[in-house]
Amino acid sequence: MTKAEKTRQFIVEKTAPIFNKKGYAGTSISDMTEATGLTKGSIYGNFANKDEVALAAFDHNVKKVTSMIRAEMDKKKTVREKLLVYVDVYDRSQGFPEGGCPILNTAVESDDTHEDLRKRVMGIILSWKDYIITLLEEGVRTKEFKDIADPEQTALSIIATIEGGIMIARVTGKPHYKHQVLQHVGKMIRALK
Amino acid sequence: MTKAEKTRQFIVEKTAPIFNKKGYAGTSISDMTEATGLTKGSIYGNFANKDEVALAAFDHNVKKVTSMIRAEMDKKKTVREKLLVYVDVYDRSQGFPEGGCPILNTAVESDDTHEDLRKRVMGIILSWKDYIITLLEEGVRTKEFKDIADPEQTALSIIATIEGGIMIARVTGKPHYKHQVLQHVGKMIRALK
Repeated sequence: MTKAEKTRQFIVEKTAPIFNKKGYAGTSISDMTEATGLTKGSIYGNFANKDEVALAAFDHNVKKVTSMIRAEMDKKKTVREKLLVYVDVYDRSQGFPEGGCPILNTAVESDDTHEDLRKRVMGIILSWKDYIITLLEEGVRTKEFKDIADPEQTALSIIATIEGGIMIARVTGKPHYKHQVLQHVGKMIRALK
Repeated sequence: MTKAEKTRQFIVEKTAPIFNKKGYAGTSISDMTEATGLTKGSIYGNFANKDEVALAAFDHNVKKVTSMIRAEMDKKKTVREKLLVYVDVYDRSQGFPEGGCPILNTAVESDDTHEDLRKRVMGIILSWKDYIITLLEEGVRTKEFKDIADPEQTALSIIATIEGGIMIARVTGKPHYKHQVLQHVGKMIRALK
């Protein structure tokens, strides 16, 4: 890594939790200078504008979640066990970026206001959906499941339920609600035959 | 209504779609003066501050959705039909406030940043959950269902799945995804026995 790359990386790591908690509109340049200890000039010497920092921060936050999930899945043998990793990881939510699920946070903020970010979140959700479909199809191929009637509906419903459960738990301040919703997702996954 | 009440109502009606689309941090005073044609002084002559407008706008947006749902439910006889109203109303989403579901939008924005709004959304979600539980218990009492193992888990999962489905559809720009997720909610409700 060059010195410039290291500075960019430092700025992203320090500002990513703030973007995730306060949102992109809610994060100010003074939040960014405070978190990094750098001047405005130094931050904008490394990024063209706030949007560029926001996009890099989103990528950083998502990578934190996805790499954790992939690592857990690699330890599992059956497709069912791999799918249940979502339930476990989101239930513990250890190692998650501060401010909760970056996909949910960024999706809701960006949909009407920030086209570049919206596209970035869209890409992440579509690959998540496609990855679950791939797993479901693998389960059919290995005869773990007989046939999944509508893999896309199943994949979308798993994602929707997880993200909705996170939203409810965060806004009510009751992690137990997320746990209950994830138990429901677990039942859905165990019911796949 | 007094003249002051009418002006307040006018400000709320004109700014509510903006708060719902841009979020509370993203809505500026110039958005508010532009939407209403009023001066800053006139707006803040009727509300103590932006927060007070935001809270009133949220209530206005939620009322739009809940009154539509209650009206549809009143036409239905069985508990199952009443529950399926959520699927129908959210699938059509006609008459919804611009910017989509205010509960989802406001929940995600407020959870880390705006305590008064967060409490307001929390109250709405808790009453939604309790109302579904009441319906489920009514269904058991009228023998429409034998027994619901965990009414709270069922209620929370219905809400989570609907809201997550809306999030996915909005950020991907594919209403068809919301439709698929709502079909799944419909199956859940029909499977209650």
